[in-house]
Amino acid sequence: MTEAIDPSRMCSVGLLTTECFDNLGDFIVQAEETGHDFIVTPVSHPTFRRVLNQDKSNNEQDQKSWKDRPVFDRKDLVVQSADFSQKAVGVLANWTQLDSHDPETRICSELAIKQEIDWACHISLSGLIFPALPQGSIFNTARVINNAVKSMSYTQFLVRVPVADKQDIQGNLGWKQWNRFRALTEYNTKIHVALEITSELPTDKQLLNMWLAEPIKAVIVPAEIFVENPKGYPVLPKPHQKFIQTLMDKMKPDMIVTLPTSKIHKKATPSSYSEYISYLNRKLPPLEDVDHFATGYQDFLQAPLQPLMDNLENQTYEVFEKDPIKYQQYEKAVYKALLDRVEHGSDYVTTIMVVGAGRGPLVNCCLSAAEKSERKIHVYALEKNHNAFVTLQNAKADLWGDKVTLVFADMRKWTPPTKCDILVSELLGSFGDNELSPECLDGAQKFIKDGGISIPASYTAFASPLASTRLNNNVAAYKDLQHCETPYVVMFQQVCELASPKPLWSFEHPNTQGDIPADGDPMNNLHNTRYGYADFTVEHDMMMNGIAGYFESVLYKDVMISIRPETHSPGMFSWFPIYFPLRTPVQVPKGSTVSLQFWRLTDVKRVWYEWTATVQGRDGQEMTTLPIHNVGGRSYYVGL
Amino acid sequence: MTEAIDPSRMCSVGLLTTECFDNLGDFIVQAEETGHDFIVTPVSHPTFRRVLNQDKSNNEQDQKSWKDRPVFDRKDLVVQSADFSQKAVGVLANWTQLDSHDPETRICSELAIKQEIDWACHISLSGLIFPALPQGSIFNTARVINNAVKSMSYTQFLVRVPVADKQDIQGNLGWKQWNRFRALTEYNTKIHVALEITSELPTDKQLLNMWLAEPIKAVIVPAEIFVENPKGYPVLPKPHQKFIQTLMDKMKPDMIVTLPTSKIHKKATPSSYSEYISYLNRKLPPLEDVDHFATGYQDFLQAPLQPLMDNLENQTYEVFEKDPIKYQQYEKAVYKALLDRVEHGSDYVTTIMVVGAGRGPLVNCCLSAAEKSERKIHVYALEKNHNAFVTLQNAKADLWGDKVTLVFADMRKWTPPTKCDILVSELLGSFGDNELSPECLDGAQKFIKDGGISIPASYTAFASPLASTRLNNNVAAYKDLQHCETPYVVMFQQVCELASPKPLWSFEHPNTQGDIPADGDPMNNLHNTRYGYADFTVEHDMMMNGIAGYFESVLYKDVMISIRPETHSPGMFSWFPIYFPLRTPVQVPKGSTVSLQFWRLTDVKRVWYEWTATVQGRDGQEMTTLPIHNVGGRSYYVGL
Repeated sequence: MTEAIDPSRMCSVGLLTTECFDNLGDFIVQAEETGHDFIVTPVSHPTFRRVLNQDKSNNEQDQKSWKDRPVFDRKDLVVQSADFSQKAVGVLANWTQLDSHDPETRICSELAIKQEIDWACHISLSGLIFPALPQGSIFNTARVINNAVKSMSYTQFLVRVPVADKQDIQGNLGWKQWNRFRALTEYNTKIHVALEITSELPTDKQLLNMWLAEPIKAVIVPAEIFVENPKGYPVLPKPHQKFIQTLMDKMKPDMIVTLPTSKIHKKATPSSYSEYISYLNRKLPPLEDVDHFATGYQDFLQAPLQPLMDNLENQTYEVFEKDPIKYQQYEKAVYKALLDRVEHGSDYVTTIMVVGAGRGPLVNCCLSAAEKSERKIHVYALEKNHNAFVTLQNAKADLWGDKVTLVFADMRKWTPPTKCDILVSELLGSFGDNELSPECLDGAQKFIKDGGISIPASYTAFASPLASTRLNNNVAAYKDLQHCETPYVVMFQQVCELASPKPLWSFEHPNTQGDIPADGDPMNNLHNTRYGYADFTVEHDMMMNGIAGYFESVLYKDVMISIRPETHSPGMFSWFPIYFPLRTPVQVPKGSTVSLQFWRLTDVKRVWYEWTATVQGRDGQEMTTLPIHNVGGRSYYVGL
Repeated sequence: MTEAIDPSRMCSVGLLTTECFDNLGDFIVQAEETGHDFIVTPVSHPTFRRVLNQDKSNNEQDQKSWKDRPVFDRKDLVVQSADFSQKAVGVLANWTQLDSHDPETRICSELAIKQEIDWACHISLSGLIFPALPQGSIFNTARVINNAVKSMSYTQFLVRVPVADKQDIQGNLGWKQWNRFRALTEYNTKIHVALEITSELPTDKQLLNMWLAEPIKAVIVPAEIFVENPKGYPVLPKPHQKFIQTLMDKMKPDMIVTLPTSKIHKKATPSSYSEYISYLNRKLPPLEDVDHFATGYQDFLQAPLQPLMDNLENQTYEVFEKDPIKYQQYEKAVYKALLDRVEHGSDYVTTIMVVGAGRGPLVNCCLSAAEKSERKIHVYALEKNHNAFVTLQNAKADLWGDKVTLVFADMRKWTPPTKCDILVSELLGSFGDNELSPECLDGAQKFIKDGGISIPASYTAFASPLASTRLNNNVAAYKDLQHCETPYVVMFQQVCELASPKPLWSFEHPNTQGDIPADGDPMNNLHNTRYGYADFTVEHDMMMNGIAGYFESVLYKDVMISIRPETHSPGMFSWFPIYFPLRTPVQVPKGSTVSLQFWRLTDVKRVWYEWTATVQGRDGQEMTTLPIHNVGGRSYYVGL
């Protein structure tokens, strides 16, 4: 019985052959009958190689006239018509030598490959695979392909790259050559990777994870890398299973198995390999709530909220109130604070002010915490959004009654009739302070009695260097400076961190530094400016496309919420990470140190970030110094 | 008696003081009386330092209220009014610590420096000098200045940078820190260098020359670095003289001498130092013809000629016919060829075809060579520009008579009545083949008899990595991709090569490779495509902004013309170098290898170049791989 699998997670499985079938139709029928969705076949016969004119047995005049008028002899073609285009992916000739030292070989290779690409596009093949990047120089290969794919629209272009080199498993040579190629072709969005799984995989997890940042559209699993299980059936070793499933989960690639040239696994049938791959696909770990919530948002760039300038929609409240973890943690924080601050059995009525009450979830947390802790409280619920305020009135009428006083006001300007013991707010953005929690709480902290507290008590911004072709290209697609200097809220998917995040700065509430006058109206906002930096040693050659940002917040004592991967509150979905782009991708050699510099800056009307990155070699040698991004908030700011 | 100096080469000389004069007007009068054009003075008194509040003796409340409302007490200012603005350059406070570890010190330093800048702009000081980049971290310094100069328009901003560090003369620390600063501020065109000459200069010439690529607007020569000559007068050592004169010649900076705090040279008077600097200025080596010719063209980007698509103006012919060297060399080449090919006394009439005769200078060369060599010739003069053809008819009527046959035709299409012994052309561009000499001569080589020759016989393109802030900014000013991928013809001035040029490829004529059919009409132009690369080891930390291109041509045997610096034909001014920009400046660490990759590519209608550069570290580690520029000729091509 086939297990159920979410159709949106299902990968197609194709069958690759290096044989040149005379009757491609028959082969496709066979492939389909043995459980394959498509086939992968050479475009042309090895006979076509004659155009290189390397064995001087051929007539030189023939080759010369081909150079003048490059056209296929139909006998040279394996895929001879458009009949099977929808079911077939082509593989380009493996004998071209675009980076040969011999100019003649280079020129003829270029003509031959262009001729094949042209034909593949003409008959609308669904995909075309370049069989292997040359070792050594790849400059001319990059130039030719970069140019040739310009005219491709329907047909997808893929470059086959092995995960590991047979001679040097840990050397990451495949990725390095691909990376060089991709830099030369400038992240050309028409060029993708067909990743070949190899019999040995690197043991360092990072060397596998870095592929998650690459534009993988197909994964090739050769029959030869399967092993026999005790019953004689072909299966894959555990690390291979895991890596392939991660790729399926994150990239949803087309899967390609190969036709073994001889029987290599006792009990293998022509369908064994594809069935095994489909089995791995079905066995993907089930999606969690947060994944469902994130569907469609993966690697999508959202501009961060402007909470003081915009009012939230009802639907937005609706979604975020469903977070199963965040409000649990708030309730726990209020509960613990009440236990700590008021003796059991006391008549003391703790005054709690919820600032930015929205539709009331935090008010509910407070009331519920009071009940559980058997402490008396009175809640003031402040809200500046006139629409949400109607919902608050409903809740007061229907549920809360006298325990809650509603106030329609901007917390930065309200004059309270009394002061509170506990100030509760949920103003945090993905980077902690990016939705202006510090500025809002500056205004609100005058509501707090001496000895009173704020929940949250503090929050810290974290950052780490990030690789992601997809995010790089999503930003580059805008083709302007502004989008390259704007942080986005992003549900990361096809990304790889170069190193673990490190803290940049923190805010604490109430602010006891004496910077804020008692009337809560500071002359300037200099006390909310911040500067932080962090150094990251990077252990492998990698690219850096941007910076991942996270926050961690202490609500009260040991009650935390966090979106930093290492400490992420399990199941909490209210925040995606924040992504700070870099204007150009930066090469980060093995062993070098990436330094990130961040500023939080303010003027009378705005808050913004500036950031930059530098790379220093193992020997301290300076390699790259990027310009400071978003100078003076020119591209992005949050309005006060 | 004062020697004459070209007023366009005269540098102003200013007097710098670190003293804070109460009466600035008196000081300016004194300075003028002792031969100075302007003064350089602190903007504010050291008393202003109190705002840092570092010695806790001050009233903390004072400092705090200054932070809220930063305004000058007039007693803090040395330059108290706009009265002397035209005669004064300000120096910013030297006690600010923008990269202090203490946030309070950073914030107050930023406020203080902004306050000074704001005042300087308000009173329209002609310039403002930032006294010294901090050692170590300069991130916040860069951010603050980058932001502060935004509002400056009239007042020039300069950063004082010493040529050499006292502790480490050869370490190039000054340049490195400036370079880091400039990368962070992204070649901000409002930030210039005030270069301080130090008592010791690095002995490696390249460490001095690299300053020629920087935006130097002032040169500071402290009194302390002068030495006493035998008569007791202050003079500078030879290397200092030479370097200062080079700077005067290339950058025309404002010169600044300092007021010695005590008598350090026996016979020195208050005017000795400025007089010595003015003397060096007057003693600049006189301009050569080529310099006069180049006036106004230095570092100016000219789009290269499109000789097949455009016809030259009469004025252009007029200028280039005046080249004192080029036609000498052509005449010598024809002369030697005639001597070699025809025996003395023979009646053989050598047929010479001048293809692209213009207004006839090469015809004159041929006739003159024939006369000197006492050989008989007949000249065909081909020209496709109908305007120039009128001038040719005048010359034939007035001078040449029967010795010359005029032909109005495009050499690629003309069918000759006879063949020639010698084909003479001057179709070379700055990069050799960039004005399509190969394509033109493909068409014309069918005119040549078996055993006949072409003058030029061959030409070779050379390239080298180049640093130049000025060229970088001239290209960047266009703010588009197209201009970053277009080669320009440029008279280099404020540039520095990272290494000497190397050859990329050559063309030979007549082409004997059999690529061109006898009818001279090849089916394709593949035989004129080229690929070349060159590696350069760079000995110091430098920046690469673009690539310098040159050509060398063998006209006939040992008769050459060249614009490659190492072999430049002395006095020949017909060609400036060519400049290939790079889309982003590239950091090139000491000891690393720059690889340049160049292609000459063609299709049916166009010829273009593509290029890229990579940098590899000492250990072979890949640091930078730039994208291939001008993919498919998208930004620039020459029409066929």
